[in-house]
Amino acid sequence: MSIILIGGGSRSGKSSHALTVARGLSGRLAFIATAQAHDEEMRERIGRHRQDRGSEFITFEEPLDVAALLLREAANFDVFVVDCLTLWLSNMLFAEGRDAGVESHALLTAAAQSSASVILVTNEVGCGIVPENELARQFRDLAGHLNQDAARAAAEVYWMVFGIALKLK
Amino acid sequence: MSIILIGGGSRSGKSSHALTVARGLSGRLAFIATAQAHDEEMRERIGRHRQDRGSEFITFEEPLDVAALLLREAANFDVFVVDCLTLWLSNMLFAEGRDAGVESHALLTAAAQSSASVILVTNEVGCGIVPENELARQFRDLAGHLNQDAARAAAEVYWMVFGIALKLK
Amino acid sequence: MSIILIGGGSRSGKSSHALTVARGLSGRLAFIATAQAHDEEMRERIGRHRQDRGSEFITFEEPLDVAALLLREAANFDVFVVDCLTLWLSNMLFAEGRDAGVESHALLTAAAQSSASVILVTNEVGCGIVPENELARQFRDLAGHLNQDAARAAAEVYWMVFGIALKLK
Repeated sequence: MSIILIGGGSRSGKSSHALTVARGLSGRLAFIATAQAHDEEMRERIGRHRQDRGSEFITFEEPLDVAALLLREAANFDVFVVDCLTLWLSNMLFAEGRDAGVESHALLTAAAQSSASVILVTNEVGCGIVPENELARQFRDLAGHLNQDAARAAAEVYWMVFGIALKLK
Repeated sequence: MSIILIGGGSRSGKSSHALTVARGLSGRLAFIATAQAHDEEMRERIGRHRQDRGSEFITFEEPLDVAALLLREAANFDVFVVDCLTLWLSNMLFAEGRDAGVESHALLTAAAQSSASVILVTNEVGCGIVPENELARQFRDLAGHLNQDAARAAAEVYWMVFGIALKLK
Repeated sequence: MSIILIGGGSRSGKSSHALTVARGLSGRLAFIATAQAHDEEMRERIGRHRQDRGSEFITFEEPLDVAALLLREAANFDVFVVDCLTLWLSNMLFAEGRDAGVESHALLTAAAQSSASVILVTNEVGCGIVPENELARQFRDLAGHLNQDAARAAAEVYWMVFGIALKLK
């Protein structure tokens, strides 16, 4: 179907808007959480979010292989929400033997070719002072390029500010 | 009357736009500065800003009890500018025995129910790389939630970029 | 002619959009790179960008004296792209015996009075958490003021998000 990109800063209402958009599209809804539960606090947070979404969404926890999941489950859902791209990118960078550029291309290709609508949630991380940390600078570059590629592939792009969605495309 | 939210990054022209909007509304104008003068430099800066605003505005310096001030002075002014929410939130977090969530709710309720127009100035702090500092991350979350709540309560919302106001709502 | 300001976060597609706008204006195109090649990696990066721009643009590398260059070369070009203002400001701050405020005024005056179109590329650096580093805070303030001054002097202002240009003015 088509890609819808929803991006913005931290706590800008991205995820909430993604769920609203997903509910507005008819059909079977899937939620792909890319967060990893490294500790108890994170596990509780993920569980709480799952409850908040309610029974409308089937939740998948997939930190890395989102492209494969989109392909494998394409026939079972009409809408996928992937929350979020920047966390997924960060997981990819720390994973052994994975190439973030190749994987990003695969994810966007799988999303673009899916018979379902794919709503990608992403973070803007490039509007602060240049980070002193070298790895943070590299991540910022990669995340910015991924966001541009995702926006190019998307049929609709929204920028979230203070919980309000501004349509860019 | 109603809440007008004016937000943006550091040095994006938020305060200046807030004063312009306030002057455009007729009546008696109040300016609530939430900054605290911890040192001589800060005292001079606050004094300079007060001079820049001129005699049109009555200035109050109130780092914490903005809700009470809005209620107490409601009958004496037609417009309040609160500059700014993020600084106020930061003061609240460092104050003993205050709950930032409860206080945020009280401030927005007082602003929404005021017979005067209340112009809230706020900072976007969530568009950079995730801070390494734990306290900074918590502050970022709280500020983002407060901004979303304020935008929801507001009749008008502006996003400032390079001194230019973009109307979001 | 006139100033066109194109700003946004890191990797938001600013430079690419500036080249597109420049190519859309007819005439002889100049590109003023303000980056300094301090090491081999940077030299390669600058060289690669120069190749990407192709033979349409004459490239100047000028970390500091952009105002003088704009004046000196005004008769030889129809469009100048200055990439970017924030890097130039940072160079100015580290240069001996230069006053960033005076130089900023000179740059914007030269651009405004030029017979050519001047496209200024700039970074938004003020939408993250307040930096702990004092110098970073000062730079953020100066960059924000420069961006506001540039936007005031500009005939057109664009805000880039995810590679998409939002016209602000």
